[in-house]
Amino acid sequence: MDSAEKVNITEKLARFDKHWSPKIVGELNGQHVKLVKFLGEFVWHHHDDEDEMFLVVDGRFRMEFRDREVWIEEGEFIVVPRGVEHRPVAEEGASVMLFEPASTLNTGNVRDEMTVTEVDRI
Amino acid sequence: MDSAEKVNITEKLARFDKHWSPKIVGELNGQHVKLVKFLGEFVWHHHDDEDEMFLVVDGRFRMEFRDREVWIEEGEFIVVPRGVEHRPVAEEGASVMLFEPASTLNTGNVRDEMTVTEVDRI
Repeated sequence: MDSAEKVNITEKLARFDKHWSPKIVGELNGQHVKLVKFLGEFVWHHHDDEDEMFLVVDGRFRMEFRDREVWIEEGEFIVVPRGVEHRPVAEEGASVMLFEPASTLNTGNVRDEMTVTEVDRI
Repeated sequence: MDSAEKVNITEKLARFDKHWSPKIVGELNGQHVKLVKFLGEFVWHHHDDEDEMFLVVDGRFRMEFRDREVWIEEGEFIVVPRGVEHRPVAEEGASVMLFEPASTLNTGNVRDEMTVTEVDRI
């Protein structure tokens, strides 16, 4: 991945199908730009040390917090501050761009079958 | 700006008209998410310590480097590594999301009439 080359989001999304498995598509200032496909319910988790940004590029999803929920539509984003428990849910599917520190684990404080420890660059 | 509230990019873009004047629309991990409207030619510059990401949300622009140029279309992004001289040009206008450290000055190493030292949050 040459960071001075442009990236076409649609083209990158066509390279994978697996849900809840983020792929790295960019890197800058110790942060990763990732693409991920949501379908169904993720796991409740939080990140101790990382804020996370979710930008919807296709579809929509519901970000559940313990006390409320927010629908994030195409062309919208939300920043979930560190320490805040959340669960993304996308019954109909969504493609989402993530911005987060390179250290971020997708399931945060939780380790389960949805945890991805080796994140591919595509 | 409550960082746990969602942000609608189109709605934010409707709040300002001025070109080459980035607005902060999000903040996480010491990074700023900004929106900026390009029209015409910017100034040649580089950033000593910051990589910069440019994501086109409307229109398109040409990123000029000293030895080449790259057109960035809607739904595409480019990361310009620190130290690399660049100049964005958008004859027909473009709306762009920036992702960069909070310390980043729009004109990098250059101070001129395009330099914005007070960046509004919208």
